[in-house]
Amino acid sequence: MPAYATNMRLKFPILALMLEVVTIVLYALLVVYDTGDAHGDGSHEESNTTHSSSPMTLYPMFQDVHVMIFIGFGFLMTFLKRYGFSSVGINLLLAAFGLQWGLLLQNIWHMHNGKITINIEKMINADFSTATVLISFGAVLGKTSPVQLLIMTLLEITTFCINEHLVVGVLGVSDVGASMTIHAFGAYFGLAVARVLYRPGLRNGHENEGSVYHSDLFAMIGTVYLWMFWPSFNSAIAEPGDPQLRAVINTYFSLAACALAAYATSSLVEKKGKLDMVHIQNATLAGGVAVGTCADMDIQPFGAMVIGITAGVISTVGFKFLTPILASKLGIQDTCGVHNLHGMPGILGGLAGIVIFAISSMATNGFNISVLVYPSVTATYQACGLASSLGFALVGGLITGLIMKIPFWGQPPDQNCFDDSIFWEVPEEEEENEERLTHGDSSKNKAEA
Amino acid sequence: MPAYATNMRLKFPILALMLEVVTIVLYALLVVYDTGDAHGDGSHEESNTTHSSSPMTLYPMFQDVHVMIFIGFGFLMTFLKRYGFSSVGINLLLAAFGLQWGLLLQNIWHMHNGKITINIEKMINADFSTATVLISFGAVLGKTSPVQLLIMTLLEITTFCINEHLVVGVLGVSDVGASMTIHAFGAYFGLAVARVLYRPGLRNGHENEGSVYHSDLFAMIGTVYLWMFWPSFNSAIAEPGDPQLRAVINTYFSLAACALAAYATSSLVEKKGKLDMVHIQNATLAGGVAVGTCADMDIQPFGAMVIGITAGVISTVGFKFLTPILASKLGIQDTCGVHNLHGMPGILGGLAGIVIFAISSMATNGFNISVLVYPSVTATYQACGLASSLGFALVGGLITGLIMKIPFWGQPPDQNCFDDSIFWEVPEEEEENEERLTHGDSSKNKAEA
Amino acid sequence: MPAYATNMRLKFPILALMLEVVTIVLYALLVVYDTGDAHGDGSHEESNTTHSSSPMTLYPMFQDVHVMIFIGFGFLMTFLKRYGFSSVGINLLLAAFGLQWGLLLQNIWHMHNGKITINIEKMINADFSTATVLISFGAVLGKTSPVQLLIMTLLEITTFCINEHLVVGVLGVSDVGASMTIHAFGAYFGLAVARVLYRPGLRNGHENEGSVYHSDLFAMIGTVYLWMFWPSFNSAIAEPGDPQLRAVINTYFSLAACALAAYATSSLVEKKGKLDMVHIQNATLAGGVAVGTCADMDIQPFGAMVIGITAGVISTVGFKFLTPILASKLGIQDTCGVHNLHGMPGILGGLAGIVIFAISSMATNGFNISVLVYPSVTATYQACGLASSLGFALVGGLITGLIMKIPFWGQPPDQNCFDDSIFWEVPEEEEENEERLTHGDSSKNKAEA
Repeated sequence: MPAYATNMRLKFPILALMLEVVTIVLYALLVVYDTGDAHGDGSHEESNTTHSSSPMTLYPMFQDVHVMIFIGFGFLMTFLKRYGFSSVGINLLLAAFGLQWGLLLQNIWHMHNGKITINIEKMINADFSTATVLISFGAVLGKTSPVQLLIMTLLEITTFCINEHLVVGVLGVSDVGASMTIHAFGAYFGLAVARVLYRPGLRNGHENEGSVYHSDLFAMIGTVYLWMFWPSFNSAIAEPGDPQLRAVINTYFSLAACALAAYATSSLVEKKGKLDMVHIQNATLAGGVAVGTCADMDIQPFGAMVIGITAGVISTVGFKFLTPILASKLGIQDTCGVHNLHGMPGILGGLAGIVIFAISSMATNGFNISVLVYPSVTATYQACGLASSLGFALVGGLITGLIMKIPFWGQPPDQNCFDDSIFWEVPEEEEENEERLTHGDSSKNKAEA
Repeated sequence: MPAYATNMRLKFPILALMLEVVTIVLYALLVVYDTGDAHGDGSHEESNTTHSSSPMTLYPMFQDVHVMIFIGFGFLMTFLKRYGFSSVGINLLLAAFGLQWGLLLQNIWHMHNGKITINIEKMINADFSTATVLISFGAVLGKTSPVQLLIMTLLEITTFCINEHLVVGVLGVSDVGASMTIHAFGAYFGLAVARVLYRPGLRNGHENEGSVYHSDLFAMIGTVYLWMFWPSFNSAIAEPGDPQLRAVINTYFSLAACALAAYATSSLVEKKGKLDMVHIQNATLAGGVAVGTCADMDIQPFGAMVIGITAGVISTVGFKFLTPILASKLGIQDTCGVHNLHGMPGILGGLAGIVIFAISSMATNGFNISVLVYPSVTATYQACGLASSLGFALVGGLITGLIMKIPFWGQPPDQNCFDDSIFWEVPEEEEENEERLTHGDSSKNKAEA
Repeated sequence: MPAYATNMRLKFPILALMLEVVTIVLYALLVVYDTGDAHGDGSHEESNTTHSSSPMTLYPMFQDVHVMIFIGFGFLMTFLKRYGFSSVGINLLLAAFGLQWGLLLQNIWHMHNGKITINIEKMINADFSTATVLISFGAVLGKTSPVQLLIMTLLEITTFCINEHLVVGVLGVSDVGASMTIHAFGAYFGLAVARVLYRPGLRNGHENEGSVYHSDLFAMIGTVYLWMFWPSFNSAIAEPGDPQLRAVINTYFSLAACALAAYATSSLVEKKGKLDMVHIQNATLAGGVAVGTCADMDIQPFGAMVIGITAGVISTVGFKFLTPILASKLGIQDTCGVHNLHGMPGILGGLAGIVIFAISSMATNGFNISVLVYPSVTATYQACGLASSLGFALVGGLITGLIMKIPFWGQPPDQNCFDDSIFWEVPEEEEENEERLTHGDSSKNKAEA
């Protein structure tokens, strides 16, 4: 790969500005405030909920979700020792573009008089759509250029919006916390991209693919914010009233149980019984993912806790045993382990939804053998939603990966992976260190090798 | 102490999972959503407050408190140079278990039809109950194993719930911001535990018992979040309407005045007039603790400011002069100085409450000498609340300390105190540094010059 | 300058406590809760808005603004390698005093029965008033003593309150997000102070005037919080209902577009096409500043995006090309580049407001040549608001700078600029490093052993 390919000076600004200008033109044509409508609809909404009809009712929830997207995802990925600028910085870039693009595509299906009307709920959904990209970003973290990632954002959000419309809009599948449509989708999309971008040169690891003490603490900022605000993520667009309250309570307890399980399992799988920061940073959150689909359902707190504890165990075990196998056997190098945090727990959430609808159908219709043969209609739809999300993710991810692989987009060479300095000005101290390492003193080189 | 005792591989996972499984079983038997009730009660609540009856009204306050518990307490304790993983990580573990346990025990006294019904207010109270443990954690920070701390969580929250029920439920003591029942209780409980776990080997300090530049900045994340959201802590469960507004305003101004006092005193007690990060990280918050008991009362903003300024001075002076004495004379090694942030300001808050009720009784009944002899009934109850909180804390802490002292729980030996690496996988760089320092290679010195 | 002048031991505590005591006395005389009034006013407010009349309605917005002031501004300035304690610590000090002082002066113009009544909206405004000082703090960061900065806080907030009363109260100028009255005002006030405090000795830079890797990450905490919560800043005191919703939506999209523009421009102006952290930390926020004045107006999302993209480009270009010129040609050493983040975008916001009122007047009255000669009355008032803000800022800043220049206040000598250790106890490691570097020996090894 020629050296100049990674110089972003023209290709990145041109792509970024072009995307922004096109977006602005589309907004000028299509997007207006939801002000008149807000009042018109207000009266009938008011009648069946106890909520105020103020257009700002959902605003605190929106801000919680906003914090998850920009602080949560951004800092969660700062665990790498020399990749913090990209983690939090490119996270901001992708989400800032993604929310504009997602809002357009999510609402193109239901315009009023040729216009998309914006309110707080649609801003929450726009933020949600970016989560898919940020999850996939975790899978390819450290191995892609900003140009590649902008392209991924464009294509992944487009794919997401189609699948979401199909699953939630057309099939009417229940997925309030988006275990399937965001978490499983984002994870398998990212893993498919990572497969296409497989780097044999990184088979034996990379000296920068690890953390330092303070980078792990920065990552904990992300973890704790995601953990705290996940009840808002799973309840923000739930039906106001009891369903929303249930979504909050279920997520709260699922995460609490999951945390205990993740700590216990982390200690159990390590021969000296020590806790591993990778597990704590990630697996403690799996309970929020896994309870997503059925967050607003009447599963009772202990049901949520059972889901949470299961997710915590599966996720930690996945980090310990599955991630190395995916890398060595299947050529899927998953930097952040999104398969363990979003992939498997997302599927677990989808399956939990299927089971709950099947059980609830049995409870209504009485149990007989025909239920196993002809499962309930809603349970079937739930299964279709899961299958559709996985299918769109894998196919979309493979195609996107092939497009991202075009050398022109400036993918960094192996030796510059996991290193901010290829796309960022990095304070001199760092370069000095580098210089030191290159010239002369070899003690640190040996030690780090 | 035999070396293997600190290997947590079996004892920690077994304890953690056992606690979680028992909790889930109890939840399955006892805990349900507060959904039906929410609507049933809604009508009469609506009549005497201006609040909406939505079950989500308190949700933004809940999230503020949640941030204080997990980010605030967690990062406040990251000031130690090599103990950040434990500070923020074990904080998460203890709070995640504590909130499940606290919710059970706080509500066991008032079940409906044999069930505990969960709503947002009860989640706030559950979060509150964990604060006691996190305060005590500060006293023993760096000197205990995760197993010891889980045991402390179980016992301390149990003791807290009994005292809280007695003080607030039975005696009807006013303590809206919990100066007595949480802050003073948590501090003296922790100090009693620290006394029992006294380590003569740490009399002369420990090389890791201090901060580095960036660990102090991480700690400031905790400080600032606690400072900002304390008005939510003190007002979350206040009566809606004016009392809640007063609680917010009083806390806001108490903290503002306290900050000035802490900065001024910090500079005053140091011979070069420099500010000390320990004071800034902690004493700026004492105003939130001290105004807790009377936060919702009509003390007017200037009254709150007087309480705040007093707390700021006392707390800073305590850090400078009292903490060393407690360690050397009484054998109480208080790592974070919780006596200065939660102990004395908590007592100050309790006393302020007594005085205000006494004054208000005089204002109502006219002042005569009998008031001094027979103080008002409410003031007396307030005093009983303070005494009860201190009594339960000291006795509970001593017993808990004795149980925690059993060697089997894996308490770290002196030389491994204040060091994450005994219970955590720590990035290699650290060990390398150590190795380098040990082997006397001076290349880094040159390189950095 | 004699060496002892920078010892703060007496002058700082005396000034801080004196200010606090005077403030408490004034509060005792003048300030009460807005409780009775809240209900009295409630009825008529209720009639023209859809908002609940609860006194806590604005509380979540208040907390967002609070986070911006204390975390946002505080951590944004931690980018300097050795000035993080001062950035976040002195930020807290100034804001804690400033909000008490600001609340007094902002409300002295409209007292009821000789009393200032406090509610959440007034607390938001008090927080706002401190933003002016924190912006100016950015211009003089690293070159001033805490005593100087307390004096600046006192004088700047006083000046701000006069100008705000004139512009918003008397002239009725529209400036909901305070592009003019806070951002432009704070920036030019700070630049005027910086001009007076010009240090020829720092013409060629200073070894501490730069970042290290992790200090840049701390700064990103500030950036991201400001970015996320800016919609609250611009909408908190907007008219409830549609104007408030528009303020949120406009700010959300302005910032999203601004982020893309800042990233693109940052890459474009650097010869290797790399991103510069200074631009990302600051210029991504310019869209929030620039859309402030017209945030609540009907400019439609695409209008907000056009403002945002413009601000992002101007701000980045300013950092790259204008800041060096200001320093070398005009003697204005602007540490944080507040001219680029608050100054020019603030003026852009003011101009956008003028243009929008002029256009809207043309739309109403029909376009004819007289509009250009006699522009609309409201547009003229807007222009007066901008001119007044700039005038008060420059004159107020010059006078304040002259007062701050008195040597007694302990301004640090050039060689101690940008260094916490002159006013803070700094963990030993730092001083040791220095010593080690100076003496070229291996003392660190011994010391840490």
